[in-house]
Amino acid sequence: MTGAVPWGVTVTADGQNTAGGDDAALEAIRERIDDLDQRIMQLISERAACAQEVARIKREADPAATFYRPEREAQVLRRIHGGNPGPLDREEMTRLFREIMSACLALEQPLSVAFLGPEGTFTQAAALKHFGHSVQTVAMSAIDEVFREVESGSVQYGVVPVENSTEGVVTHTLDRFMQSPLHICGEVEMRIHHHLLGQDADGGQILRVYSHQQSLAQCREWLDARLPQAERLPVSSNAEAARRAAGEAGAAAIASEAAAELYGLQVLAANIEDSPDNTTRFLVIGRQPSGPSGQDKTSLLVSARNRPGSLHGLLSPFAENDVSMTRIESRPSQCVNWEYVFFIDLEGHAQEPRVARALEALRREAELVKVLGSYPKAVL
Amino acid sequence: MTGAVPWGVTVTADGQNTAGGDDAALEAIRERIDDLDQRIMQLISERAACAQEVARIKREADPAATFYRPEREAQVLRRIHGGNPGPLDREEMTRLFREIMSACLALEQPLSVAFLGPEGTFTQAAALKHFGHSVQTVAMSAIDEVFREVESGSVQYGVVPVENSTEGVVTHTLDRFMQSPLHICGEVEMRIHHHLLGQDADGGQILRVYSHQQSLAQCREWLDARLPQAERLPVSSNAEAARRAAGEAGAAAIASEAAAELYGLQVLAANIEDSPDNTTRFLVIGRQPSGPSGQDKTSLLVSARNRPGSLHGLLSPFAENDVSMTRIESRPSQCVNWEYVFFIDLEGHAQEPRVARALEALRREAELVKVLGSYPKAVL
Repeated sequence: MTGAVPWGVTVTADGQNTAGGDDAALEAIRERIDDLDQRIMQLISERAACAQEVARIKREADPAATFYRPEREAQVLRRIHGGNPGPLDREEMTRLFREIMSACLALEQPLSVAFLGPEGTFTQAAALKHFGHSVQTVAMSAIDEVFREVESGSVQYGVVPVENSTEGVVTHTLDRFMQSPLHICGEVEMRIHHHLLGQDADGGQILRVYSHQQSLAQCREWLDARLPQAERLPVSSNAEAARRAAGEAGAAAIASEAAAELYGLQVLAANIEDSPDNTTRFLVIGRQPSGPSGQDKTSLLVSARNRPGSLHGLLSPFAENDVSMTRIESRPSQCVNWEYVFFIDLEGHAQEPRVARALEALRREAELVKVLGSYPKAVL
Repeated sequence: MTGAVPWGVTVTADGQNTAGGDDAALEAIRERIDDLDQRIMQLISERAACAQEVARIKREADPAATFYRPEREAQVLRRIHGGNPGPLDREEMTRLFREIMSACLALEQPLSVAFLGPEGTFTQAAALKHFGHSVQTVAMSAIDEVFREVESGSVQYGVVPVENSTEGVVTHTLDRFMQSPLHICGEVEMRIHHHLLGQDADGGQILRVYSHQQSLAQCREWLDARLPQAERLPVSSNAEAARRAAGEAGAAAIASEAAAELYGLQVLAANIEDSPDNTTRFLVIGRQPSGPSGQDKTSLLVSARNRPGSLHGLLSPFAENDVSMTRIESRPSQCVNWEYVFFIDLEGHAQEPRVARALEALRREAELVKVLGSYPKAVL
């Protein structure tokens, strides 16, 4: 506590008692900052006026035009990310421009974005990371509801987890794409953390660790080193794991900080995931496709004929056309006609000639090829 | 779904088919936006370099100097708020500058801010609203822990609810100030919403509505109009209300969206609070006091002698010195010597002469006067 006089009035601790020379130097820099702020505000205002003008021209050509263009936004952010002179981190500068663009867009066309709730989840954080804080986010209680809200037009976009390493929802999202006319128009990546939660921070032997299978796998090395004797018990979700740990002596859970609060558990050890790059990937879904941005990905749903060598036949058009696949995932088909369905991510936009050629060749091999979307790669 | 060709490759819906004149006009505006972005980035970078220079000068004078100055930040934001030329809302422009300042400060001195958790609460949102998104927020499970984290120096600042209309935590926060050396160095206001939650969206008679006393009071008119027959049952918290509603037929709860998700309830009616301005107020607490910003508030803790007319005697120095009180709250003292303790908010900084005079007069009347802090009024 600094500078409290007897009757409690306090004097400032900062800047009031330094030498005169420093004060003058600080004052000069503050004036310079104030001047910079005025100029920044002026330029941001000009930018917003330009965005209004773009909207006016587009609206004249098509009264129902949408102004959010994922490919254009990705290009702007990449230019900022690549051209940032410092001293701010390029991530910070890119984040600031995300917010500036978000504010300019909201002026013309406020966006509503549905996400897998509740409030405060990683999916909401992903939606705000992608769209900035000038959009309205709307919590849905299931992935299916996010799709329906976008399909019905109640909201313009949705954000759903697709490779969620803790809850295994990837299958719900991918399955839902089989019957949806929506397009993938963006991806977002978020880092996630796991914690060891228990009832008693002072120790007490931990005999069992509950968690979702994938979380247990992601913390395997830590568990081997620190709790080699504890039994590892996979359960349906990390929230369920925390619930059990709260009710059983000798039990702990691997789960989030929110789960600790919810079930009154202590964080016994924080950030125990083996890989420092433990990320979860989300997809942005909308009714309009995204144009090419120069650095894009394409996601496909492909059904294979059930015959020997079919997977090899499916994949060869990619290699032949020099198209890299970044992910392939097989799922049992929900339709009796096909034996298997594959979800494939590849590099490039479906409008690029080499990708278009590969897709054309793929169509000759596969029962069905559905392009779920071509979209800009995540900038951050 | 637009423009899907048979094998699923999609064509862009946007900008590709408009007339040549529009395209040229749009291209010209986009080039102008790109140019503005480069200049904005340049100026933000210069601003960050200035912030580094301020930090260097301060650090030379005092190696342990803190660079976050609430009063300076409030002054900058007020200038932006008042000088914004449009077309962006002044709220949006101010929010953008909050983020720019947050990023510049984080470059020199990353801030950690403790809040009443878990993640995703209003208190976290308040912390991010006040400090911007470049700070690290740390969830605590109790108000007392937030105070202790700041007192111990583990984090620089804390954010606690002080007038929380739903959970009644105001008393915990105020009581904790009685024994804390911390200063209030800011305030944040957030709008909050109440929802009617139940098990069955299709109806079924609602016989009982559970909620915290204050939430029931805040939704009284809505309940009178829509559920006049239902019994209103106050419980300890809105989360407890949701828990009960999930387990009893014919029961509903007034609580947040997060509680709906948590207990698997449906939102039967959203935003049922009677007042559209249902705000919750939070305080920012830290170890250093804040200097005058020109538009400040001061919060006091005052103990009264137990004698007739003591309250009137206490308050007269304010009127005599033309100091407005914005709030007064009486609490039973936790110390046997005093009968009552009052928490008083008033307009002005304790360093302003008229406030200093009023406080001096107050000291002659009261057993104890403790200035909890003078701090800038919330800008937004």
